[in-house]
Amino acid sequence: MKTLGYYDGRIGELEEMTVPMLDRACYFGDGIYDATYSRNKKIFAIDEHIDRFFSGLETVDIKIGMTKVQLKELLYSLLEYMDDDGLFVYWQATRGVGIRDHCYEQGYGKLWVMLKPQPIVDMSQKIKLVTHEDIRYTLCNIKTLNLLPNVLFAQYAKERGANECVLHRGERVTECAHSNIHIIKDGVLITPPTDKYILKGVAREHLIRACRALGIIVEIRPFDLKEMMESDEVIVTSSGSLCLQAESIDGIAVGGRRQELVNALQSYLLGEFRSATAR
Amino acid sequence: MKTLGYYDGRIGELEEMTVPMLDRACYFGDGIYDATYSRNKKIFAIDEHIDRFFSGLETVDIKIGMTKVQLKELLYSLLEYMDDDGLFVYWQATRGVGIRDHCYEQGYGKLWVMLKPQPIVDMSQKIKLVTHEDIRYTLCNIKTLNLLPNVLFAQYAKERGANECVLHRGERVTECAHSNIHIIKDGVLITPPTDKYILKGVAREHLIRACRALGIIVEIRPFDLKEMMESDEVIVTSSGSLCLQAESIDGIAVGGRRQELVNALQSYLLGEFRSATAR
Repeated sequence: MKTLGYYDGRIGELEEMTVPMLDRACYFGDGIYDATYSRNKKIFAIDEHIDRFFSGLETVDIKIGMTKVQLKELLYSLLEYMDDDGLFVYWQATRGVGIRDHCYEQGYGKLWVMLKPQPIVDMSQKIKLVTHEDIRYTLCNIKTLNLLPNVLFAQYAKERGANECVLHRGERVTECAHSNIHIIKDGVLITPPTDKYILKGVAREHLIRACRALGIIVEIRPFDLKEMMESDEVIVTSSGSLCLQAESIDGIAVGGRRQELVNALQSYLLGEFRSATAR
Repeated sequence: MKTLGYYDGRIGELEEMTVPMLDRACYFGDGIYDATYSRNKKIFAIDEHIDRFFSGLETVDIKIGMTKVQLKELLYSLLEYMDDDGLFVYWQATRGVGIRDHCYEQGYGKLWVMLKPQPIVDMSQKIKLVTHEDIRYTLCNIKTLNLLPNVLFAQYAKERGANECVLHRGERVTECAHSNIHIIKDGVLITPPTDKYILKGVAREHLIRACRALGIIVEIRPFDLKEMMESDEVIVTSSGSLCLQAESIDGIAVGGRRQELVNALQSYLLGEFRSATAR
């Protein structure tokens, strides 16, 4: 298959798959998702993503009647249907199917999977950023299907010729539309603490571990817009891009002052991805 | 038909209707909805609901290729399929169908409609409320499909034997999980100003007009939790309930000190509903 959609036991090409109109995803966005990438039939950092997924389910009280091991086995079994390699591996669980009612009865939700060919992003390309006030809720620590603000932020960036949108609550930088953000100043990596405003990104965790392996000091603390603009490097991380270097924010040149550190981190993270997904 | 689902030209019983797995509602909650009630094949306050719906679509840049008049005609034409009368009339527009990507191409979205038998709530029943910190985003002025927090609030109330959940940002009362909230003090109706935290509810507008018709002074200003607890009456409005009187909040008795005003408002609003939906 070229793409794969899975819904509650059924599979088909994504474009041909249908789901019940009464799935609570359709009218409440009532679900949790996670996503990562595969190569050579190996799914990168799968246990970390599944752990976070289950933690999110617990936060919003969705049960799927499946263990972490069973979910992992299912995802691996679905990879076997795919013609291509180098896939975006996405899954979500919704609270189930029923006539629209905010309240719910306890029961098992529905599992969805979407697979499509998509390699991770080329890290040699520097990216452009724009900034926007962070208007989201305070459930940013979990990956819910309530992503309309993120859609608007991503589109805001695209329409300004940028790749990602940096969010801030007042002066405090939080994260991006679909990435975490970090800065390097005086050789130290500064990354905001994860809380209700900031997702504990898996790629962020890998970046922190890469810093430690490379002897780069990590400071976990908030930073503001001014500090970001004056930093030596601005770095954006996500599962699909690992670690990208920003070259401008709102049209103003940033970073490029500690290229050797960016190169070392990107090289370390790409090596880790390649080795974990080697044949 | 007992219930009706409409998706992009197709119709069927709600339980049998399917939608494309790649509709952006399914993974981003990328859409806008509105809802009201019908009786005797008349849809209550339909123009106000359609106006708000189109305004929400514009805010999030979704186009549906249909005029307000055409949407109204479509909704009326769908009522004709229904066996019962006294319906919940719900519709939403999503940004369209495609492989998951936060950014979008300009195009027409998909229209969904859901109809089910459901009369408006009996207003003679007093309701119980609980309170919860309002953790939502700052798009509360529009009705998006990003309703997971609202689901959690409604369930929080239900599990505590209550009917609705009063939300507050710090001490400031905003609205409820799916209603607006107001208080009466010294014969004056106090209702918070609608802004990014509070929807301009159609039932709220009708309540304000009812007050004016009945000679009740309306003050549009924020109030806090303490003022709410000490008020003479606490009133909750929504399209499905018109105007409900609260008898307790977090288990503490409230209201009941200006019963004649509550009765007058409920009677006025029910009369308006009945007359607008008379045969």
